[in-house]
Amino acid sequence: METINLITPHGGKLVNRVIPENKREQVITESKEMSQLKVNNEVIEDLYNIAHGVFSPLDGFMNEEDVLSIVKNDRLANDLPWTIPITFDITEDIAKGYKIGEDIAIINGEEETIAILHLEQIFDYDKKAVAKNSFQTLDLAHPGVEKVLGSNDKLFAGKIDLVNTIIKDFEQYTFYPTQTRELFKEKGWKTVVGFQTRNVPHLGHEYVQKTALTMVDGLFINPIIGKKKKDDFLDDVILGAYDVLINNYYRNDRSFMGILRTRMRYGGPKEAIFHSIMRKNFGCSHFIVGRDHAGVGNYYGPFDAHHIFEKFPDLEIQPICFRSFFKCEKCGGVVNDYTCPHEGTEHQKMISGRKIRSMIVDKQLDGLVEYMRPEVAQYLIEQNELFVK
Amino acid sequence: METINLITPHGGKLVNRVIPENKREQVITESKEMSQLKVNNEVIEDLYNIAHGVFSPLDGFMNEEDVLSIVKNDRLANDLPWTIPITFDITEDIAKGYKIGEDIAIINGEEETIAILHLEQIFDYDKKAVAKNSFQTLDLAHPGVEKVLGSNDKLFAGKIDLVNTIIKDFEQYTFYPTQTRELFKEKGWKTVVGFQTRNVPHLGHEYVQKTALTMVDGLFINPIIGKKKKDDFLDDVILGAYDVLINNYYRNDRSFMGILRTRMRYGGPKEAIFHSIMRKNFGCSHFIVGRDHAGVGNYYGPFDAHHIFEKFPDLEIQPICFRSFFKCEKCGGVVNDYTCPHEGTEHQKMISGRKIRSMIVDKQLDGLVEYMRPEVAQYLIEQNELFVK
Repeated sequence: METINLITPHGGKLVNRVIPENKREQVITESKEMSQLKVNNEVIEDLYNIAHGVFSPLDGFMNEEDVLSIVKNDRLANDLPWTIPITFDITEDIAKGYKIGEDIAIINGEEETIAILHLEQIFDYDKKAVAKNSFQTLDLAHPGVEKVLGSNDKLFAGKIDLVNTIIKDFEQYTFYPTQTRELFKEKGWKTVVGFQTRNVPHLGHEYVQKTALTMVDGLFINPIIGKKKKDDFLDDVILGAYDVLINNYYRNDRSFMGILRTRMRYGGPKEAIFHSIMRKNFGCSHFIVGRDHAGVGNYYGPFDAHHIFEKFPDLEIQPICFRSFFKCEKCGGVVNDYTCPHEGTEHQKMISGRKIRSMIVDKQLDGLVEYMRPEVAQYLIEQNELFVK
Repeated sequence: METINLITPHGGKLVNRVIPENKREQVITESKEMSQLKVNNEVIEDLYNIAHGVFSPLDGFMNEEDVLSIVKNDRLANDLPWTIPITFDITEDIAKGYKIGEDIAIINGEEETIAILHLEQIFDYDKKAVAKNSFQTLDLAHPGVEKVLGSNDKLFAGKIDLVNTIIKDFEQYTFYPTQTRELFKEKGWKTVVGFQTRNVPHLGHEYVQKTALTMVDGLFINPIIGKKKKDDFLDDVILGAYDVLINNYYRNDRSFMGILRTRMRYGGPKEAIFHSIMRKNFGCSHFIVGRDHAGVGNYYGPFDAHHIFEKFPDLEIQPICFRSFFKCEKCGGVVNDYTCPHEGTEHQKMISGRKIRSMIVDKQLDGLVEYMRPEVAQYLIEQNELFVK
């Protein structure tokens, strides 16, 4: 059988900071004697992503050198591209209870030990500089800015070791990089394009995915599951709608869906790079970058997230960039701004997410099938709960 | 204005072996004193392509070292990729009339001086080895094999200088690399995909071209004009059909048609590399390689012309490879074997060139519009002469 060499993970190899099974009981016992620190779900998601290699080459929460380097160069201190700091913020009061050099047991709300943090550094950081670099604005109306400026004053840095991976939902969609890489190889894929989404699929998404798939061996549909904005679609609605689409319109030897658990930052171009690095770790050679990728409001130009890739010739994962797409009745089907000459609304019909949302809410199946596969539209109008409250 | 750097020509710079205007009269006068050699149209096409840089870095007809190197390595003696020898064959009798070192005036059927050949070498060559390397068969039923094995026994090698470029037909479609590169820059294209064709365009061709165009700045439709097989479409029918398609369905700021005058070799994978090198010289960063590209009969596997590109990592122009495409009534429109799961003839309809030909001949507009734009189909059924006789 042919040996398949997928793209090398970011930084050279997949990080694995999961405590081996045969040492796990011992570490849990030892952790009872350590200082305890209860954290929220977002920190736990970061711990999982670090330990399971999604954030390779990170082996813990970033130290001051890396944070400063990102703010200055969009690179880690070792010069590897990295645009969004992965940090662990803590109040000054809580920070006082811990000492550099100690091992801390990180626990969840149910008092379960999740990981050990080897505390290497406690440092102050310039929130404005971080927010400005990540989001290119300090407007508090930007959800990412609000979050960074509202974060705690101290950062804990240090390597982590994961004790427990507790998956409570979407288990059948949960795959980490070692698993996706194994799956891609089993399918015989050498080149894989990753698709980031936080939306239910319309004809434009299918067009983009299948156009990109035409250039590579496989398509990895990788919805982001985690904290989103109010009125974003619910995670299970997104996954359910994709299941319907894939079962009816995709080849299972050429496409695969797994989730990525991390919060959206709405960082536009900087987040596009971060998104592509995670997909590189999952084994993707290519990554689809849309119009206003990971954007919010009007903070970014529609193609900023395309152009930023020119600054990272050493990123290795290749962006496949899409501008606008729409339906054209004269061309027939979904087209894009380079391929269709029939300007004007007589032939061209925009595929508007907002319009689709309101038709779903109003259960307008006839209108929806203009922009969605009928099976997907039917599934959506049957759902009782659709949006994040 | 932004400086646009198109792909570097093959070997580093465009060859220009056209005698400058201010020296032309003098060279023509001198040529009257030289030995004369009357050649056919194919040799003249080669002379134009050498002199105008289409065959860069070739500055004349190949010598023995290059021919042997191609047969052995698919590279010129200087290691640059090159798969199809560009040679000038001559009978032994005629060859006796010329001496190495002399300048020969190359004339056409109308006794016009076309070029000066600086004869550097006269050599025998192993026709079977050349044919076998180019076509991977020695079957005389293969039109390329028949041509090589039936060629004259001696080869003339030497640099050429072009005196006259006589364009008698399709002048408005005739562009050489300096011109296409200027045009691409004027349009603001940094990346351009070249499309080779010798057929009238159906929906599958449009699908392939527009899918590739989605990934780059511009599309260069580049039909091969020149000697073809009996029953191939006539050159002016191909160009006329494309004009109709482009005028109705393509953006003129994103697409451009110019011709390439050279004969088809039907060399499959080896010709795909040769085709891509010429398009690189025209300024194309990408080149569309279809199923059984430049194939004939069943001499090549359907994807041999895709795989061969892996042997030339230094080619620089990037292939965009397409497998099979067909219409799917369930997907809607043209799809491919990676994107459509609806196997079986219930939904999938092959786009058969043979079927389209017979519908054109029978003037079946209703049937044709399933596979062609109606304007193109209408144009074709209105033509009196369609095929090479």
